[in-house]
Amino acid sequence: MKNYFSIQDIDSLDHWVDEAIKIKKAPLSDKVLGVNKTIGLLFFNPSLRTRLSTQKAALNLGMNVIVMNFTKEGWSLEYEDGTVMDQGNSEHVKEAAQVVSQYCDVIAIRAFAKLENKDEDYSEKVLKGFIKYATIPVVNMESATGHPLQALADAITITEYKKKDKPKVVLSWAPHPKALPQAVANSFVEMMQQMDAHFVITHPVGFELASQITKQVPIDYNQESAFKDADFIYVKNWSSYTDYGKVLSADDSWKITEDKMKLTNQAKFMHCLPVRRNVVVDDVVLDGQNSIIVEQANNRTYAAQLVLKKILKNEK
Amino acid sequence: MKNYFSIQDIDSLDHWVDEAIKIKKAPLSDKVLGVNKTIGLLFFNPSLRTRLSTQKAALNLGMNVIVMNFTKEGWSLEYEDGTVMDQGNSEHVKEAAQVVSQYCDVIAIRAFAKLENKDEDYSEKVLKGFIKYATIPVVNMESATGHPLQALADAITITEYKKKDKPKVVLSWAPHPKALPQAVANSFVEMMQQMDAHFVITHPVGFELASQITKQVPIDYNQESAFKDADFIYVKNWSSYTDYGKVLSADDSWKITEDKMKLTNQAKFMHCLPVRRNVVVDDVVLDGQNSIIVEQANNRTYAAQLVLKKILKNEK
Amino acid sequence: MKNYFSIQDIDSLDHWVDEAIKIKKAPLSDKVLGVNKTIGLLFFNPSLRTRLSTQKAALNLGMNVIVMNFTKEGWSLEYEDGTVMDQGNSEHVKEAAQVVSQYCDVIAIRAFAKLENKDEDYSEKVLKGFIKYATIPVVNMESATGHPLQALADAITITEYKKKDKPKVVLSWAPHPKALPQAVANSFVEMMQQMDAHFVITHPVGFELASQITKQVPIDYNQESAFKDADFIYVKNWSSYTDYGKVLSADDSWKITEDKMKLTNQAKFMHCLPVRRNVVVDDVVLDGQNSIIVEQANNRTYAAQLVLKKILKNEK
Repeated sequence: MKNYFSIQDIDSLDHWVDEAIKIKKAPLSDKVLGVNKTIGLLFFNPSLRTRLSTQKAALNLGMNVIVMNFTKEGWSLEYEDGTVMDQGNSEHVKEAAQVVSQYCDVIAIRAFAKLENKDEDYSEKVLKGFIKYATIPVVNMESATGHPLQALADAITITEYKKKDKPKVVLSWAPHPKALPQAVANSFVEMMQQMDAHFVITHPVGFELASQITKQVPIDYNQESAFKDADFIYVKNWSSYTDYGKVLSADDSWKITEDKMKLTNQAKFMHCLPVRRNVVVDDVVLDGQNSIIVEQANNRTYAAQLVLKKILKNEK
Repeated sequence: MKNYFSIQDIDSLDHWVDEAIKIKKAPLSDKVLGVNKTIGLLFFNPSLRTRLSTQKAALNLGMNVIVMNFTKEGWSLEYEDGTVMDQGNSEHVKEAAQVVSQYCDVIAIRAFAKLENKDEDYSEKVLKGFIKYATIPVVNMESATGHPLQALADAITITEYKKKDKPKVVLSWAPHPKALPQAVANSFVEMMQQMDAHFVITHPVGFELASQITKQVPIDYNQESAFKDADFIYVKNWSSYTDYGKVLSADDSWKITEDKMKLTNQAKFMHCLPVRRNVVVDDVVLDGQNSIIVEQANNRTYAAQLVLKKILKNEK
Repeated sequence: MKNYFSIQDIDSLDHWVDEAIKIKKAPLSDKVLGVNKTIGLLFFNPSLRTRLSTQKAALNLGMNVIVMNFTKEGWSLEYEDGTVMDQGNSEHVKEAAQVVSQYCDVIAIRAFAKLENKDEDYSEKVLKGFIKYATIPVVNMESATGHPLQALADAITITEYKKKDKPKVVLSWAPHPKALPQAVANSFVEMMQQMDAHFVITHPVGFELASQITKQVPIDYNQESAFKDADFIYVKNWSSYTDYGKVLSADDSWKITEDKMKLTNQAKFMHCLPVRRNVVVDDVVLDGQNSIIVEQANNRTYAAQLVLKKILKNEK
């Protein structure tokens, strides 16, 4: 594998999940694989789980880890070709990516959507800029429009907890006071299209995700009907794609409550975290026995470790 | 040992100090103990000595080290139970602590007093929040009300330099232009109650530390009389506990001078650093042959290493 | 070698470059040399290449690496002796340097010119303050007036690419919207005085570098005549030394163009990076086959590794 940019880079999800679960059982068994190999983690945005779990994954593989908060510790980057760089940006991604490629063996990058310009965000200028010019593999630690390491951890988690071959999985929008990117939802939707599941998306009108991502996935604008018989409830807020980056609604009636969870088939509750308690979801749900958010976060390590292992072994 | 939160977690100070001095003589002798173990250092505030010495201690034990400036690199945390999190905080300590516990084997945390609300600071919401929800040991790298790694280094230093079984140790307040926490003073006071010493506190009226900490320790409001025959002068500024967080006085007459040091029994001069020269203490004292501030800072490594060793060996 | 502060610390450039090229061929052959040794990288300013390449060099030598953004993560330092420290600075370099010396085996420091006061910048108060008080070797990762690791990488690069024993090397000023330090230019000038080269500096009137650095090096105020028959064009902007720290001119006519490069002897194009495209130099030059900026950046690792190796082996 060269880069892990999106769900499309997974050639066989079943095999990947099986292998991740094997890694989880013996996380140090490939510790020689990464010896004398260096991963550079470049952060353009805050991170807790991704920051720590990707470091842990690399350490489990015996790699050296260099962490850099790119925006604050380095130079502001230009991404456009042909620009006369007489404004704020000091360095072009062309040089930055080529140079970092000489000091590291793998780069992992986190760069959120700015939510100001849909075309710019969906062009993935940061990740694609690095991929274009880097001469080493690039891993997506959450880009403007996707979070494939999270989605891979989600697939592992669903596989571990499912009680039937084809569970019903519901992705539900929930309210949030701030505008959030669509990245986690996008990658989860793409992942569910590769899993054997009855998959439904539910959200208020106006929060439709990009149709090139949702494709034929059914959308139910009635959250309660969507929840019926669900085996997994995956909750996430995102800002509007159509009215780009807007918080059209913070409709409290979409909050996840115990009553709504009772409509399900004792569904497991999932969320990528961080989660705002009692805004997105009630305490009683988060703290209930069907909440698997902590184990879901734990699987971030094994998702990252699988991806890094495949890169180090240069296998599909 | 589970957590190292305060001086109360030391079961036998004599044994601890003896062991730390042994570690100092052969700091790499336990280098296999921490192999494949990871410590996460979470900083909510600036740090020089603690940041470097705790890393060094972990490296001496063969551990992996992950450093995170939590406030700037991660998410703003909520500590109250039941809050509707629709304001500035993105994540609850309940999730943060549980999640970090899965990526690390030990967490160490620095979170200063805000000096705005005494009850909030003395509730130790950050450290106690992590201790409540973490499933791995938590080490205090200076909390709102205590700095037990500093106090342990102080105990090692006094043991190394004392010339009699029961030295006279004086904790003296000194002036400072900014309001500082009581943490270092509190832990030193608690530590001195476990050491065999004649211990006296001296400070201006209004700077009494919490009585639940000072207990029966004599307080002398006359700095010069307190200094008489002292073997160790430990200097530190703190803001008022009674009139909470206030700089009631920057009384220059409390500065430590050569003349005052002449009142002592050639006392060793100690300070936890950083120290403002010629405000807290005159250059001539800091640079004099009885100043042991650099060796005191050196012992921070061995204090941290002792605590981490006990945690890794899971011993009292 | 004790410290690597400036080009003057190089005893025999030919031997150094030869050894760096050997290290480049087998970068892991000294991996036992740094085992259980710790380097502390202290950053007072942003850094990309220096940050990553110095870490990589230390890892290649088997060292532990501790990185600290000193200004943001630690305390603001005082450098003057005898100051009454009642203003913004919390700690004196005297304590900071002594204390860090106990946790690390080598310190490397980056501290830019402030460009406000020539005497202060050229006194090198930060680097010299650390060198004065540290008890371990100090490496300059770009100080107020010099960048000797860059210049060492430049010497390696020129040696690798030169086609004649005594190539013509031109250091050309180029326009830039912001005031930049003279550090890179200064160290390159000093380095070229140690290399066997026809060395010429070209810049507009008013941009003369310090005469104690340029000494007898010829200055040509006509960029085009300077470029004639050049084998290497080394481009860098710097603010005025005479009218200290001022951007006297952003004269576009000094930009490096394809036409100007045609005046040369198919010269290799060099720049320390970051570079502002189409302000300092046109895309077509940077992207042309004679641009060796990426390989030049690559040599930063081997320059740093050579210096650290000499320090670890304590050899000249």
